[in-house]
Order: sequence, then C-alpha cells, then structure tokens
Amino acid sequence: MNITLIGTGNVAQVLADRLVQAGHRILEVSGRTESSVKELAHHLHSRPVLNWQELHPGSDLYLIAITDQALFHFPDIPALKQAFLVHTAGSVPTAVLSRYTDRYGVFYPLQSIRKGVTTSDVTIPVLVDAGTEQDLKILRTLAEEISPLVRKGTDTERLHLHVGAVMVNNFTNHLYRMADFYCREQGVDFDLLKPLIEATALRIKQAEPAMVQTGPAIRGDQATIARHLEQLQEYPELAQIYSMMSKSIEHWNVISRGK
Amino acid sequence: MNITLIGTGNVAQVLADRLVQAGHRILEVSGRTESSVKELAHHLHSRPVLNWQELHPGSDLYLIAITDQALFHFPDIPALKQAFLVHTAGSVPTAVLSRYTDRYGVFYPLQSIRKGVTTSDVTIPVLVDAGTEQDLKILRTLAEEISPLVRKGTDTERLHLHVGAVMVNNFTNHLYRMADFYCREQGVDFDLLKPLIEATALRIKQAEPAMVQTGPAIRGDQATIARHLEQLQEYPELAQIYSMMSKSIEHWNVISRGK
Repeated sequence: MNITLIGTGNVAQVLADRLVQAGHRILEVSGRTESSVKELAHHLHSRPVLNWQELHPGSDLYLIAITDQALFHFPDIPALKQAFLVHTAGSVPTAVLSRYTDRYGVFYPLQSIRKGVTTSDVTIPVLVDAGTEQDLKILRTLAEEISPLVRKGTDTERLHLHVGAVMVNNFTNHLYRMADFYCREQGVDFDLLKPLIEATALRIKQAEPAMVQTGPAIRGDQATIARHLEQLQEYPELAQIYSMMSKSIEHWNVISRGK
Repeated sequence: MNITLIGTGNVAQVLADRLVQAGHRILEVSGRTESSVKELAHHLHSRPVLNWQELHPGSDLYLIAITDQALFHFPDIPALKQAFLVHTAGSVPTAVLSRYTDRYGVFYPLQSIRKGVTTSDVTIPVLVDAGTEQDLKILRTLAEEISPLVRKGTDTERLHLHVGAVMVNNFTNHLYRMADFYCREQGVDFDLLKPLIEATALRIKQAEPAMVQTGPAIRGDQATIARHLEQLQEYPELAQIYSMMSKSIEHWNVISRGK
C-alpha cells in the first residue's frame, strides 16, 4: 500500500516503521516542523513535504497522526479531497474527517508510544473504524499486519478505552514519578522498587486486579497508613494522593458493588 | 541453617519455599490457624506447632512473618528467649523484638508476595538489618541466597521504601482495578489495556518515569480531560481520582522543583 504520512511525532514514527516493516511504502511525509519532516522522510526513504498544500494526491491512504486539536482544525488540502483519510486519535470521532472525504477512518494505537522506547517487541493493540464496511476491512487488514490485537472500536468504545488508558498508563506513571521523587528526597534507592513495579504489572495477566490488591489500605491497617502520612508531611501533594487512594481502596468494594 | 517459621501467610510461604530451595531446613511451622499451620508444615516437611508456647528452642533462626499489629504484641515464649528472632515487616522497627532477645533483626522482602502468583522467577529485593554487625552479616548472606538484590535497610529507609512501594504497587493496582471496573461497566475489553500496562511498567527499566510521562494532563489538553470527566459523571469516585491525578500531573514539574 502507498501511504502518505501527516505528522512526525512518536505515533507517526513508530506506526510508519511498523508499516514499512510490513512491506508498505511511505511516499511522502509532512508535518509542522521542518527538521522533523526532513529527518523522518530521510529515515523512511520518503519525500519530505514542508507545506501541507503541496501533498500529492493518489496515495492509497493518508495517515494523519497529529494532535487532537490540530485534527479538529485540519486544513483544506485540495489533493486530499476524496482521498482515504485516517487519523490515529482515541478521543476524536471517526467522522471528524468526513467533511473532506467519504473515505474516512481511524487507526488508533492503544499504547503509550515513544520512539526508541516502543521497540518492535512491544504489542500495540489497534482499534479501527471507518465510514464504510469496505474501508473498515482495509484498515483491519492493515492493522493485523502490524499487531496481534486488533478490534473494531466505535467512537464511544475508543473514548472509554482512552479513559482506561489514562488511568493505567498516565496515572500509573505519575505514581512512579512521585515515588522516584520521594525516594531521591529520602536518599533511598528507587531501583529497589523496580521488581515490584514489574511484578505488579505482569501479574494482571494471570489474575484480575481486584483479586491481587494488597497493602495497608485493603487490610484496613490505619496504623501503617498514619505512619506513612507522617512521612509525607513535607509533601502535601503526595500526602493528599496517598490519602485519597487509600480511602478509595478501603471503600472500593462497597462503591463498586453500590453502583 | 535450621529455621523455625512463625506465620503461614503469603510472605511466610513464599520465603520458606525459597529458603528450602536454597538448602535450608524449616524445622517447625507455627501460626494462628490450625489448618494453615498443618498444610504449610506438611508442604515444608516440618513439624506443625499449633500452640506457639510449644515451639522448640535451638533453631538457628526464628523467622516471624506475621502482621505488624501481631508483631507489636508478640507473646513471651520461653523457648525463644535469647534466640535469633527476625521479622519481615517494612514499617516495623528492627528493635521491636529486642525485649525478647539480644539477637534480633529484620528480613524485609520488598515485593508484593502472593503464593502461586509470586513464582520463582520474580525478583524479591530483600532489606536486612540486625542488632549486631555479626547478625546483619548472617542475614545478608541468607538473603543473597534467595535474591539478587539485597541491601541493608535501617528502620527509616525501610519505612521510606514501604511508602514508595504502596504508591507503585497498591495504588497502581487500584488504578488497574478501577479501569477494569470501568471497562466492564462500559462493555469494552480490559484485555486491550494489558499491553499498555505491561509497557508502562517495563519502560522504567530504560527511562526515568519523569522522562516518559504522556497523556492529556502533561500536554495540558483540557478538552480531552473534560471529555473524559464527562464519561465519568456516573462514577464520582473515579472522576475525583481522575481530576486529582490530572491536576497533579499538570502541576508536578512546578511542585517537585518548588520543594
């Protein structure tokens, strides 16, 4: 498939690499930053296009990996009229591109993607959707070439999964950051926590998270919670999060049942 | 080494298994619940002791893996007077056992340990401390036989690491639980988030968590945050945590620098 890539960020780069590895060609690369466009185009053996208006028509697919905000303000590009336009955003409706073309879709990689870090052994689940069944089939086939985990995902389904992704990735990583910060401040070695971080994530493959919750909060061990909060006195932000998460863990069974 | 095990919970079981595998003998197993004592003693080829007062003297080490509360109220057991008593708690001072003996210490496994889930390929960092240098050396050697990651950990250091452990394990797993719950409620497949969970945890081996923070909050993408909070309207607890974590991510650079 001949693909034009719009965007040069992490998602654009990692998806393009996998598509090329699957045998597809990236004809042109376009984006906002001249140096990034040139660098990525060079890497992909593609033509760099510094002005979006100069993109060529005729690609089988225009893969638009840009920010949500930029998607909502995607410019009129004559060459792309009636082209197959596909964006990569979890929280943006598939039809955002429908004012340009009848052939629109989404190719949403449900993974925290960073060039260099997201190596080829990392599974990237892909959620696809499109304006027609035929285009959906094309996207599904394409996705299956670069991922073992492909599903149709409607706007609403992708939005729900994105909410979940924010919780398990962004918030989790923020907890790692806070613990790293706290350990540095206290002069203890954050590396000692890394096996625990790994085990915590890997065990959900075997057991539902609800079945493996441990720690002072689930035990109702107020003495330990109080001792920990005392340590966090100098860090009101950490103390607030510690308190709120502990309370939520304590009340969770009631809350989730109460719903 | 001849070891007596007091406690039959997850920590007791998993540590005992590793110690036996390293060539040590568990002579006796004691605990509060008759069936657990009998079962674990049978598994370890040890003598079950249902009444703590009937424990025999003469073991090289008495490994006490019981709750923090129970440690503070550890009974007088004549046979253990002046024995080598070691507990496994992160947040309990090493000296809690000093009123029974001059030979006291701690053997703290910094891992979320669950029988069956904590398989032998899981690294268990161990923090050791003792009342004397000689006993510290014994514990360090013992720990190194079952773990590649052993450090001396004073009461304060263990407490700090335990606070960090609660953040990266208990709170993280709670986020998984909430996401799992939310996905079920919305009819989307939580399994699609598992590669993301795994990647999030594994990448901290390569990069500091502060370097790999992604998501709407760090981008200051208020539109996405608002759209997500709208989805969480029916779940005030989730919405509250979503809000607080997002704000913390947004402000974090300021806060951590401001400290």
